Amino acid sequence: MEGVTSVLHDPRFRAFASDNYAGIHPEILEAIGAANGGHQIAYGEDAYTERLQAVIREHFGERAEAFPVFNGTGANVTGLQSMLPRWGAVVAASTAHINTDENGAPERIGGIKILTVDSPDGKLTPELVDRQAWGWGDEHRAQPLVVSITQSTEVGTVYSPDEIRALADHAHAHGMRLHMDGSRLSNAAAALGVPLRAITTDAGVDVLSYGGTKNGLLLGELIVVLDPAASDGLVYLRKMNMQLASKMRFLSAQFIELLSNDLWQRSAAHANTMAARLRAGLEASIADGSAPGLAFTQSTDANAVFATVPAAAAARLHEAFRFYDWDISTGEVRWMCSWDTTEDDVDAFIDGIRAELASSV
Amino acid sequence: MEGVTSVLHDPRFRAFASDNYAGIHPEILEAIGAANGGHQIAYGEDAYTERLQAVIREHFGERAEAFPVFNGTGANVTGLQSMLPRWGAVVAASTAHINTDENGAPERIGGIKILTVDSPDGKLTPELVDRQAWGWGDEHRAQPLVVSITQSTEVGTVYSPDEIRALADHAHAHGMRLHMDGSRLSNAAAALGVPLRAITTDAGVDVLSYGGTKNGLLLGELIVVLDPAASDGLVYLRKMNMQLASKMRFLSAQFIELLSNDLWQRSAAHANTMAARLRAGLEASIADGSAPGLAFTQSTDANAVFATVPAAAAARLHEAFRFYDWDISTGEVRWMCSWDTTEDDVDAFIDGIRAELASSV
Amino acid sequence: MEGVTSVLHDPRFRAFASDNYAGIHPEILEAIGAANGGHQIAYGEDAYTERLQAVIREHFGERAEAFPVFNGTGANVTGLQSMLPRWGAVVAASTAHINTDENGAPERIGGIKILTVDSPDGKLTPELVDRQAWGWGDEHRAQPLVVSITQSTEVGTVYSPDEIRALADHAHAHGMRLHMDGSRLSNAAAALGVPLRAITTDAGVDVLSYGGTKNGLLLGELIVVLDPAASDGLVYLRKMNMQLASKMRFLSAQFIELLSNDLWQRSAAHANTMAARLRAGLEASIADGSAPGLAFTQSTDANAVFATVPAAAAARLHEAFRFYDWDISTGEVRWMCSWDTTEDDVDAFIDGIRAELASSV
Amino acid sequence: MEGVTSVLHDPRFRAFASDNYAGIHPEILEAIGAANGGHQIAYGEDAYTERLQAVIREHFGERAEAFPVFNGTGANVTGLQSMLPRWGAVVAASTAHINTDENGAPERIGGIKILTVDSPDGKLTPELVDRQAWGWGDEHRAQPLVVSITQSTEVGTVYSPDEIRALADHAHAHGMRLHMDGSRLSNAAAALGVPLRAITTDAGVDVLSYGGTKNGLLLGELIVVLDPAASDGLVYLRKMNMQLASKMRFLSAQFIELLSNDLWQRSAAHANTMAARLRAGLEASIADGSAPGLAFTQSTDANAVFATVPAAAAARLHEAFRFYDWDISTGEVRWMCSWDTTEDDVDAFIDGIRAELASSV
Repeated sequence: MEGVTSVLHDPRFRAFASDNYAGIHPEILEAIGAANGGHQIAYGEDAYTERLQAVIREHFGERAEAFPVFNGTGANVTGLQSMLPRWGAVVAASTAHINTDENGAPERIGGIKILTVDSPDGKLTPELVDRQAWGWGDEHRAQPLVVSITQSTEVGTVYSPDEIRALADHAHAHGMRLHMDGSRLSNAAAALGVPLRAITTDAGVDVLSYGGTKNGLLLGELIVVLDPAASDGLVYLRKMNMQLASKMRFLSAQFIELLSNDLWQRSAAHANTMAARLRAGLEASIADGSAPGLAFTQSTDANAVFATVPAAAAARLHEAFRFYDWDISTGEVRWMCSWDTTEDDVDAFIDGIRAELASSV
Repeated sequence: MEGVTSVLHDPRFRAFASDNYAGIHPEILEAIGAANGGHQIAYGEDAYTERLQAVIREHFGERAEAFPVFNGTGANVTGLQSMLPRWGAVVAASTAHINTDENGAPERIGGIKILTVDSPDGKLTPELVDRQAWGWGDEHRAQPLVVSITQSTEVGTVYSPDEIRALADHAHAHGMRLHMDGSRLSNAAAALGVPLRAITTDAGVDVLSYGGTKNGLLLGELIVVLDPAASDGLVYLRKMNMQLASKMRFLSAQFIELLSNDLWQRSAAHANTMAARLRAGLEASIADGSAPGLAFTQSTDANAVFATVPAAAAARLHEAFRFYDWDISTGEVRWMCSWDTTEDDVDAFIDGIRAELASSV
Repeated sequence: MEGVTSVLHDPRFRAFASDNYAGIHPEILEAIGAANGGHQIAYGEDAYTERLQAVIREHFGERAEAFPVFNGTGANVTGLQSMLPRWGAVVAASTAHINTDENGAPERIGGIKILTVDSPDGKLTPELVDRQAWGWGDEHRAQPLVVSITQSTEVGTVYSPDEIRALADHAHAHGMRLHMDGSRLSNAAAALGVPLRAITTDAGVDVLSYGGTKNGLLLGELIVVLDPAASDGLVYLRKMNMQLASKMRFLSAQFIELLSNDLWQRSAAHANTMAARLRAGLEASIADGSAPGLAFTQSTDANAVFATVPAAAAARLHEAFRFYDWDISTGEVRWMCSWDTTEDDVDAFIDGIRAELASSV
Repeated sequence: MEGVTSVLHDPRFRAFASDNYAGIHPEILEAIGAANGGHQIAYGEDAYTERLQAVIREHFGERAEAFPVFNGTGANVTGLQSMLPRWGAVVAASTAHINTDENGAPERIGGIKILTVDSPDGKLTPELVDRQAWGWGDEHRAQPLVVSITQSTEVGTVYSPDEIRALADHAHAHGMRLHMDGSRLSNAAAALGVPLRAITTDAGVDVLSYGGTKNGLLLGELIVVLDPAASDGLVYLRKMNMQLASKMRFLSAQFIELLSNDLWQRSAAHANTMAARLRAGLEASIADGSAPGLAFTQSTDANAVFATVPAAAAARLHEAFRFYDWDISTGEVRWMCSWDTTEDDVDAFIDGIRAELASSV
């Protein structure tokens, strides 16, 4: 049988469904190759994982420590478990990925109760946190001991450093810790034009899931402990949560590369720029009447555009372009750009949207 | 900061500690590159995962279906969960990886009780299974509904097809299912000189963990369901167990390559040959008196050599070569060969062992 | 040391906090005594548990089977687990006891995701269910396979038989099952003036938690399976969930007594009547201006009164009477009557409320 | 329908199967009655639970604190969880109740790995503990942080105070804690003729499950924390483990009574005396040749007799008397005496055994 040294897929297929439809950034693939060859001690005692720690400290401060894992759910569940006793609960927005898209892994695997708060823009505030942050000492209530936020959020919005600091201060004042699901942290930092630490370590975040996959890795996420006092037992939890890579050098090498030469920033900024181009093109279309029925539901702070589209147009658009229905009841859709989305991709998509909307009228 | 396009590790470092100290087979790395570029639907709806199913059916039979996951613990726990109700238990050798090396993941994450049986050679037999296979219907006892075996075993031995068939028949006759931890399945098949299906599908195995990482992959394992009636809900379990890769094409492409052009067989057979060379060289040393104090504790059926070594010699050997202490109380050690172990590696190791043993006298 | 054959508590202490502040109904205590003496096979093979099944079939229909457990959380979690695969989720009102008052036991112990819907009166409707009942087949989403309702609800309202039937039909039409937390089922049936089966078996409920403790038992709840096809493995789940009583005869004997001679009905109706008396007395006080600041927040369908009270008055009331603050942010309180609440208790409480409200003005 | 004020069971039925076939000691039932009437704050803020703490301190020392729960499995799992992080493991004899008779509750509910050691007499020693007490810091291995022993053991043997002290010292020296499953602690203390604290607090036990049910209660067990530094979060764990009684006064009142007027001692000593009578009678029968084929497998230290009986005789005996087969492969049986076993019961049983053995020859 023939191997796959020859390509099986159609590289011309392009989509706006998710930033994990894209592949591996060439610099990342090159880094994997450089880390290959010879023997390295398994399970993290390799030269790359050692170097990764230095890189992480450079980006996130001297107390930061990174634990490579396989995916975002693994990073979130394992990181949160390390912050919580068995009776702990997490306050999160009801739209949070940990609440909606992890098939109950935080609850089932982590044993974590999620106390949800509705938020129109996917962001928590101290006031919203307070709706669930109460009942400490009451044995009947899962104890709210961590606040978890997503940066950038699941609906494409971005917290400012001050907004995060306010949440951190509020959480800490009530004996809670702040966790950040940074599956798209790079996009948020690039959008704000700040270093990663400005919206994590310096803003009071205690434990972070830092996403690599959507930022151009083959696969890989980091649990980054920013305050060592906020987390316990991560090496054991990572193993028992089935997130310990034997050939860890290949996870670490990717992150070293991502965090060097501004690759994280270049890739994220490009994705953001493509989303901005999509938004601008569609806003112009709305303005000139060529996008009837289109409306935006969230600001486009990073690399995602959220909008409502008439059902008939959406159905036809799905045939030509792949994207997510976000809320079928309202016709809300999500259009996501990635590190490899091109201007041509965006322009073709804008044309397609306009065509379908026009023919829907 | 400089990226890792330059190599950080010393490629001359060689070890006999584990087959996951080795890196990525060049053909596998090439396959990853071929699968890169363009967009592919995430979470398994890609061209590579589709092709993988055809490849798997070719190797494991028409009913076989593969579910790529990240690592062996993930494959074992998720596969076993899919075979068991919440009150189920697994009969396994006390040396089984699921019992000794997964930090309780089967119990803690899978909610699975493991009923252990001591076995001198790491292999179960119907008689050994019967020591734990009883008590069905007794609500006080975790219900033994699956027998799990490891091929090749954790102590380097290999089940014959007939031995597996006898276990499968025995399990099925008692309403139990047979699970195989095939972390080193390729090594076992190569050692026996049989195709993969001869010791899995054709021998009555119901669900298999098929290991890729130790066989030369970057990372990746497959849960292979051989009898669809034996497993339920794997797509949900994989997700909630944090084993669902978004860019699954890169897991699938590696396995397609591994299972094409006999790569699995070539890599495994090479590792086995190196272990046989190590064993033969040391047996010759024992015979000519140049390895005083050395004794073998298991047969070398695949790619591992188990032996006892005087403590002082072992201590010095550890300085020059990396390997595992298997049982400190008896001085038993494990020496493992991998797909990239060379004849020179083996010969240097034999020389080293002899030197340390001689100086211990 | 002196035993407790003499009374340690002040029997004059009365409260409106919960119906489990009351003790054991004398007829129940007598039944415990009758079941005492001699030997009985443990863990449910006794004469009382056998008789209980006949009693249950009489009340809930020929297919009903009862599994005695210790408490309501145990009944809910165990019953729900028996209805769900490992990847299942439950749609429930956000005010549901399983969501708010069980310290995450459904999630942590049961491995169950709860998909919540806000409901002003604590009741679900088919429309409310649909807000969470979607996404079947999507591996990222916990699969909504059970709808759980509470009768009477946590806010004192009662579903009509038709409302339950509509929910059952809706659930069944979507491949879901209907679970009822009947911690106060007796109060609901007594309020509606219907037999227990009218709002359970005959209304399409599949699995029921039937509460005894609040209805006058020492302790004890029943998981009642109404449709055997909806539940699997209860005997194993009960044991592993630590809900299996060795001297089960004493749980069963209490329930036999409760379900004989209309004791369940007499006790529940009395509690309801006392709540109605409290409500009527306070409504009269509002009407004549003697309860300034008092307002009701829910209808008083069974044995609970929900109202808002000015903070200062509530604080003073707490000194004299024990009751629950339901929502501190709004000043909402819960006043609960039990099988042994007396008319004098109610009248004294009404006087106390009026006095504190008057002095708050 | 008639209530159960009349007796449903045959009070002449007697058995040697388990000490939980017996009912409620009359003094205990009287104590339940005394605690009844009036209102008491639910969930443990009642006068009886408060008094219980004083009683517990009197018996177990000034630092002791008791947490009433429903049953032994609940006490064991909850107590052990309070002693362990999520990655913890317990070293126990393979015959331990937590390993064999709790349907995996420690693993499934507690998330606890049990590391088992075979022991011929059901007792651990420091040497036996060391077979599993290793691997601290190795993330692949569940971390052995608690040693759990049963007093009296599941095979009827009793640890001396010195044996327990040696285990406690050994555990503590290795950073581990000592847990005791004291389901039959009273029988052990009565057998040794020592106060409860001599084999618990004073011998270095950190957390204890103290059994009441087999000692004559309706139901109830205590988690007794002897060293507060060894346990964390018990109130939350008890709730989420579904072990929190609302009408806790009735659990506490029973234990107050049990621990007053030497009731615990009187009841346990009686059961022990009956077992000794059974043993002595059978030994005499062996000596005079009237019990052919009978042999004892364990010493009768407390209230259980373990013996092997020819299969045919055992089968006939089962028809007349109820008891447990302990190991069908060897013909080992367990005969258990309880607080209400009479001399006539024992003598009739001896006669029965002799008759069946004689007719088997």
